[in-house]
Amino acid sequence: MFKDATINEIDLAVIQSYQSFQQYRKYSLKQRADLMRAIAIELELCGDELIQNAMNETNLPESRLRGERARTIFQLTGYADACEKADWLDVRIDTAIADKVPPKPDIRKTMIPLGPVVVFGSSNFPFAYSTAGGDTACALAAGCSVIIKAHPAHAQTSEMVANAIHRAIKKNNFPEHLFAHIHGATFEVGKALVTHPLVKAVGFTGSFAGGKQLFDWGNQRKEPIPVFAEMGSVNPVFLLNEKLSQSATEIAKQFAASITLGVGQFCTNPGLIIGIKSDALNQFQTKVQSEIEDIVPAKMLHAGIAKAFFEKKENALQQSNVSLIAKGKFAADELSGEPTIAKVDAKTFLQNPLLHQEVFGPYSLLVECDDMNEMNEVANKLEGQLTASIIATENDLNENIELMDAIQNLCGRIILNGVPTGVEVCRSMMHGGPYPATTDARFTAVGADGIKRFARPIAYQNWNNDLLPDELKNENPLNIWRMINNEWTKNKID
Amino acid sequence: MFKDATINEIDLAVIQSYQSFQQYRKYSLKQRADLMRAIAIELELCGDELIQNAMNETNLPESRLRGERARTIFQLTGYADACEKADWLDVRIDTAIADKVPPKPDIRKTMIPLGPVVVFGSSNFPFAYSTAGGDTACALAAGCSVIIKAHPAHAQTSEMVANAIHRAIKKNNFPEHLFAHIHGATFEVGKALVTHPLVKAVGFTGSFAGGKQLFDWGNQRKEPIPVFAEMGSVNPVFLLNEKLSQSATEIAKQFAASITLGVGQFCTNPGLIIGIKSDALNQFQTKVQSEIEDIVPAKMLHAGIAKAFFEKKENALQQSNVSLIAKGKFAADELSGEPTIAKVDAKTFLQNPLLHQEVFGPYSLLVECDDMNEMNEVANKLEGQLTASIIATENDLNENIELMDAIQNLCGRIILNGVPTGVEVCRSMMHGGPYPATTDARFTAVGADGIKRFARPIAYQNWNNDLLPDELKNENPLNIWRMINNEWTKNKID
Repeated sequence: MFKDATINEIDLAVIQSYQSFQQYRKYSLKQRADLMRAIAIELELCGDELIQNAMNETNLPESRLRGERARTIFQLTGYADACEKADWLDVRIDTAIADKVPPKPDIRKTMIPLGPVVVFGSSNFPFAYSTAGGDTACALAAGCSVIIKAHPAHAQTSEMVANAIHRAIKKNNFPEHLFAHIHGATFEVGKALVTHPLVKAVGFTGSFAGGKQLFDWGNQRKEPIPVFAEMGSVNPVFLLNEKLSQSATEIAKQFAASITLGVGQFCTNPGLIIGIKSDALNQFQTKVQSEIEDIVPAKMLHAGIAKAFFEKKENALQQSNVSLIAKGKFAADELSGEPTIAKVDAKTFLQNPLLHQEVFGPYSLLVECDDMNEMNEVANKLEGQLTASIIATENDLNENIELMDAIQNLCGRIILNGVPTGVEVCRSMMHGGPYPATTDARFTAVGADGIKRFARPIAYQNWNNDLLPDELKNENPLNIWRMINNEWTKNKID
Repeated sequence: MFKDATINEIDLAVIQSYQSFQQYRKYSLKQRADLMRAIAIELELCGDELIQNAMNETNLPESRLRGERARTIFQLTGYADACEKADWLDVRIDTAIADKVPPKPDIRKTMIPLGPVVVFGSSNFPFAYSTAGGDTACALAAGCSVIIKAHPAHAQTSEMVANAIHRAIKKNNFPEHLFAHIHGATFEVGKALVTHPLVKAVGFTGSFAGGKQLFDWGNQRKEPIPVFAEMGSVNPVFLLNEKLSQSATEIAKQFAASITLGVGQFCTNPGLIIGIKSDALNQFQTKVQSEIEDIVPAKMLHAGIAKAFFEKKENALQQSNVSLIAKGKFAADELSGEPTIAKVDAKTFLQNPLLHQEVFGPYSLLVECDDMNEMNEVANKLEGQLTASIIATENDLNENIELMDAIQNLCGRIILNGVPTGVEVCRSMMHGGPYPATTDARFTAVGADGIKRFARPIAYQNWNNDLLPDELKNENPLNIWRMINNEWTKNKID
């Protein structure tokens, strides 16, 4: 439907993006926030047509898409508020000490944008992690221009959202090429974008293979650039004995729902459940089985994802000592993602790295350990994860410090007695984690702290007060919290 | 004198470092700070012997080395204070909202250490950016273990400092292998350290070639790790007309001193001075000449650096249209770094990238522009820098916004009417900058914010208050500033 952008078109788009960036970077935080709010309004104004389009392209149900658009609007306005509030600038001011030997100069530090950011839309969040999604909101808040590589699986939806952004830019007289929208289904389009010398950062949400490729391209450039890729995760769940024996059935219901939510198409889907052989674990398993067997499979996002799900799941099931313990109702549709739970003993799991890999979709593997030692071994063997969940009583936690330590080494977010799906958009969220969950564990993709991926500190030494950015001026005209001479304060500087 | 560590020795050192890390990461912020202060005390106790040793190995004068040790102690104790104060943890707490649909869980975010950090000691700062230097202090504050690759040019000094650190560890009963010291003059030692699977981050201060190699190794690992390399910089100085015409002589004196300070062996040495043809610029040049010609060359750090300085300087001088305008007094010693100022027209400079490269030592190139357009062109053509300096009146600044914009795009710190040498150790310092000045412009190597290079956020969802890290507990036992529900406060949570 949409033709791939040519190399010349990409070059022009990036050059224009850089020119618009040079204007936009000087806009105030309030102006940036106003633009983000204007985009949110335009997104709302897209009305039912946008939802209908996304339903056609993604097979996601209406209610989910309405919720996701609302979330996208919440991100845009929430990050706009954070942008204006300016605490992400980490302002530090040290005032001069003239009689120090040598004299200490006045130094003031804030953040400035990196430059044009390329954002790769994800397939599973056509709104919240695509065209006007979290990465776009963070980049605009940071003062960057944005170039979207539309996901080909929902290119029309992406086009509609891009048009909404363009309308917001035009109505509010922002630089015309602050936002660009590039179509492309090939390798070449992505490569041309990431390797363009004027591109200064990349945001990506998707597969390990895709994210790793962009990361490598970013690092191999003459001028390497930060590529923040949020990639796969199996999100292990550790079931501890006392808690499980108290409420195995309830926990099983909760996790059967979490595994199959949105046809399992979430990066926080619990793909691995680790328990210790016991009656309680049997009870858990029996309840998961009955819950899963009642589920009528829904359509996955697109044929490619459904095919990959089927192949990876079948491949896992064919590994030795892996047994199928539950699957959902039969569905003839080849797009359907059949909920599937498999089971394996911990020894086999520890020896077979294939079983550690993500199967994107409604699939989870139950790993049965002989004892806590084996569970600790599993926790220590796993690669980096976005999340880890622990189902435990206070006794369970206190008695298993070694497991707690291993889990904290492993992931970006740990959840006690809850499911990993459902990623709150708030300041305390860490949606990231050690490689291969992301390419840089020091940053988050969700929450306004994600703005920091696209900004860098700059210090002004001995600078003229009138020419300083507002957040650094003596008068504190933005009335923000600042660290002055090592103390947080909203005070002016005399 | 010291043999290179073997691959087996390196492997053992890293494994032991990892084991000690697993203990140390659970130590409180206060305990970490106490260790850093104990190291500072041991460093002081090394007394004159350490200074004498460093003088022998580096040719640096006694006063400089005493000052540098004092600075190193200030870094250790200053970062210890910052560590304990905990604001670098960027604590964010969002409390639960039970009646939200779906219910919003309690989420609390803090920072945890990355793991064992390899630090490559620099040649030009045997104390402040070596064994017990800024990177070591940042890594220990973050909760990481540290493995030092001693700089072979001051291996004995490094050994003495390492012993001081070991004494502090032993006296205070910290994990024995929290700090390791590896000797090595070869490529292989560095590679074995950076590519070891248990190493989780790297800090480096030195040449572009060295830093870039470590960065590539770090990225090419199965599990890529952050390599923060602070590399070369020419630190351009822009002389604007009104200011120069007011005080050309004074400015010339200031820069002649800055260029030759410490035999020019600072990463912030002003290696490029850009002015516009005028009587004032001639006056500036004349004064620089007379200042430089009076300088008796001092010995450089070691034969390798002296040789590289000589070769790079001669190579620059042999480029077409480059003329020598001043050099220091003659010195027969082949270790001497002869202060040298060259001059070139802007057109030649723009066309010859070799002239943009750092000549590490007491060398600076004066670039003569026809007008402001040419100066802007130069500013736009330069690669990433640690610093840029502007010599300007308020009129000069207001009339040259384009230049101001270009300079802010270029560097991590901008200095008005001052010299770039002299890097204050304070919270507002940004010692970093766009590539190739560093490998990641989002972090600083100087100041307590440098701790963030070696830590990553982790979120605790629905966690048990008693088991949370102190900084996240309801009672706020550390009495620190925390962002709770988007507002900064020291309040407890009820």
